[in-house]
Amino acid sequence: MSSTIEIERKFLVKSQVFKHQAFNKTHIKQGFLSTDKERTVRVRLKGNKGFLTIKGASSNDGLSRFEWEKEIKKEDAEQLFKLCKKGIIDKMRYEVKLGNHIFEIDEFFGDNKGLVLAEVELNNENEIFEKPNWLGEEVTGDIKYYNSQLSNQPFKTWK
Amino acid sequence: MSSTIEIERKFLVKSQVFKHQAFNKTHIKQGFLSTDKERTVRVRLKGNKGFLTIKGASSNDGLSRFEWEKEIKKEDAEQLFKLCKKGIIDKMRYEVKLGNHIFEIDEFFGDNKGLVLAEVELNNENEIFEKPNWLGEEVTGDIKYYNSQLSNQPFKTWK
Repeated sequence: MSSTIEIERKFLVKSQVFKHQAFNKTHIKQGFLSTDKERTVRVRLKGNKGFLTIKGASSNDGLSRFEWEKEIKKEDAEQLFKLCKKGIIDKMRYEVKLGNHIFEIDEFFGDNKGLVLAEVELNNENEIFEKPNWLGEEVTGDIKYYNSQLSNQPFKTWK
Repeated sequence: MSSTIEIERKFLVKSQVFKHQAFNKTHIKQGFLSTDKERTVRVRLKGNKGFLTIKGASSNDGLSRFEWEKEIKKEDAEQLFKLCKKGIIDKMRYEVKLGNHIFEIDEFFGDNKGLVLAEVELNNENEIFEKPNWLGEEVTGDIKYYNSQLSNQPFKTWK
C-alpha cells in the first residue's frame, strides 16, 4: 500500500521500437468505480495481482496528483469489475529503462485500439530525463488521455 | 476483509430506551467517494479503525446487497476523507443484542441530527427476529435512508 503524490509526464508514442527495448511486459485490465476528476477509484488486475487505487484531483499544471493504492486479491478484483462503470480498459504495459528512469508504455486494445501512451515518473517537476526517439507529442495534463476518461470516451469515438 | 451478500432490515427508532440496552457504543465518521446506487465507495473511521467499503446495487426488494470491505490505516482514512464528496457523516453506533440478533442503532449528528435508525442483519430473508418496543416504522429499501443518500440529502433538508 502507498499514499503518495505522483509526478508524471505523459506522451504519445510514434513507433513500435519501444517493444524491443522493454525489459518487462504485463497485461492490465482495469475498471472504474468513480471517474470523478476529484476522486477516481480504480480496480486493476495487473498480471495476477489485484489493486484498488484512489486518486485525487490533479494539480493545476497536471503534473502531480494524490494517489493511494492497496493490493487486493485477484478474486476480489474480478468481483469488483462487475460493479465498475461501463468501459473496462484492456492494455499491455511495457517497461523500458532509460538512464535513471523507467518509462511505462501502454498499448491499448478494445475500444482504445490504436492508442499508445508513455509515462515517466519523476522525483520533482523539473527533473531532466532522456527522451527516446519513439516519444511523440507531450499530453501531460490533457484529461482525455486519463484512463478514467478513456473508459467513458474511448479512442475510437474521438474523430 | 469480506466479500458477502448482506441481508438487512432497517427501521426508524421511536425512543431512547435502546441506549440502556446497548453493550457497545462506537463513534463513526464516514464519507463517500461514490454515491452511485450501483457502486457506493465508503471511507469509514470506526473508533480507531479505518475501513474502505464498496457496495453494489440493492436487490429489487431492497433486502440484499453485495458488499466488499477492507481494513485500512486510520491515517489513510483521514487522507481519503479529503477526497470524499461533500457531506461527511458523523454518528454514534449502539449495539443491542436481542435473542440471536444484534441490532445496530445509529444516532446521527450534524446535518442529520434528529435521525435514529436501527438495522438488523439476517441469515435469510424470511428469518424471524425479536422486535423491541423502541423499533418504529420499517424503512428497508427506502434509499433516502441510505447513508450515501444522507450524505447528499441530509435529514435537515427533508421537510
